[in-house]
Amino acid sequence: MLYLVGLGLADETDITVKGLEVVKRAERVYLEAYTSILHVGRERLESFYGRPVIVADREMVESASDEILDGADKDDIAFLVVGDPFGATTHTDLVLRAQELSIPTKSIPNASILNAIGATGLQLYNFGQTVSMVFFTDTWKPASFYDRIRENSSIGLHTLLLLDIKVKEQSLENMARGRKIYEPPRYMTVSQCAQQMLEIEQEKQENVYSENSLAIGCARVGADDQKFACGTLKELCDVDLGPPLHSLVLLGKRAHELEKDYIKKFAVNEDTFEESWDKYHERSR
Amino acid sequence: MLYLVGLGLADETDITVKGLEVVKRAERVYLEAYTSILHVGRERLESFYGRPVIVADREMVESASDEILDGADKDDIAFLVVGDPFGATTHTDLVLRAQELSIPTKSIPNASILNAIGATGLQLYNFGQTVSMVFFTDTWKPASFYDRIRENSSIGLHTLLLLDIKVKEQSLENMARGRKIYEPPRYMTVSQCAQQMLEIEQEKQENVYSENSLAIGCARVGADDQKFACGTLKELCDVDLGPPLHSLVLLGKRAHELEKDYIKKFAVNEDTFEESWDKYHERSR
Repeated sequence: MLYLVGLGLADETDITVKGLEVVKRAERVYLEAYTSILHVGRERLESFYGRPVIVADREMVESASDEILDGADKDDIAFLVVGDPFGATTHTDLVLRAQELSIPTKSIPNASILNAIGATGLQLYNFGQTVSMVFFTDTWKPASFYDRIRENSSIGLHTLLLLDIKVKEQSLENMARGRKIYEPPRYMTVSQCAQQMLEIEQEKQENVYSENSLAIGCARVGADDQKFACGTLKELCDVDLGPPLHSLVLLGKRAHELEKDYIKKFAVNEDTFEESWDKYHERSR
Repeated sequence: MLYLVGLGLADETDITVKGLEVVKRAERVYLEAYTSILHVGRERLESFYGRPVIVADREMVESASDEILDGADKDDIAFLVVGDPFGATTHTDLVLRAQELSIPTKSIPNASILNAIGATGLQLYNFGQTVSMVFFTDTWKPASFYDRIRENSSIGLHTLLLLDIKVKEQSLENMARGRKIYEPPRYMTVSQCAQQMLEIEQEKQENVYSENSLAIGCARVGADDQKFACGTLKELCDVDLGPPLHSLVLLGKRAHELEKDYIKKFAVNEDTFEESWDKYHERSR
């Protein structure tokens, strides 16, 4: 059996009792380490589980899936995923490959950012579709997020933006020369996300949002040191929320007064917060 | 400290290791038992935790919150919530009351239906706002869900409908006479939900969906015996998915071919599935 085990969001104790039982009895334990990260390293997991953990990078999952699945028809293999196994779409290939080989699969659910974002005080019922924001390069600035935000905004809903992480990436030069030398990991910050959002609005000028739109910058959601900063996109361009992972919520116009009462304690600037709220959001439903 | 501890979706082993540590050391342990249910009873939890669990019904949480919070300024109190603590909005009052009393609060996240619904094979990125469906009575048929579905559908997104549960409710007569006699618990089924949806469409005639719209009926999501049935709303009116909890996903028109490949194995009728898909959904993005 291939088990996809959700690890939750923060540290080694966020695994469920059911998940831990799987890890303890599995033949091999892999840790998916390229779509998200825990706030503790492999060593901490290994000492908590009392057994070795194999870090699976993108290359291994994409090109050596049969190695991961080896023996899974007889024994249990655990594939650990930060958050919830359904949060990232990247494991679908592994599951489909398992099915081709007639290997049964099972998921052990856990918390994901999609519900933990409720810690902002925003109601989960008021969120539209979730979108991803990738690192722009000089020549590649994918803006499909802009259309998705427009759709959510058109019906007054909040948008959760999940921010890019780059782990074990090669530079173009190293890739061209076939050198397996990897760049240091990069994690997009709230500030970078706000800047990229404004860059695209500047370019498109379709008023999907503006410098004055209210948003909440979120860092390390689900961990003891989680941090939120509520402000305009312009204010969030200058905010520093510390270590990864970051995400951002753009408020929908239908935001409720009860939500306001909760989020104002995260205001970057209490004076501008009230003003922005009154300007850019309907008073209540 | 007041801890809101998510229990996950199925049984006693879905609690996280972190949550279990809180339960073991807390002064008192309450179980919120009126917005959702686990598939195991209080006795099973008590024997797993090795300590007593106080069942907190709606009345207790709403009118005796100070009793729950008693001593929480010095000791830890655990308030257990099925799924994730942020899934239900009903605990906000308890948290706000704790804050008034200067009692710190903390949430221990867990899986919720909002991400576990990914087990259908539908992409979580393609869901719009989540809506609730309550039991209709002869005189009360709240239809705000219809407008929410319209909004999601207008941008092609899936809608997750969470279905009503009635636990420890009084009949009107018993309520009027002040008799604390409670009706047997009721849990809305996929079939009832599909019928209520069609009843409102029939009444409004605004073509937000129809008898032929594709949906997935979901039962006991996250448990070993979770079950899905994919069919038209008309087909789902006659489907029996067994014990609670149930939920339903109405497919958005933007559903992707990859999602189709996954959900067709849940088809109530494989012949009509292909036909319905072709008729009611765009082929791909």
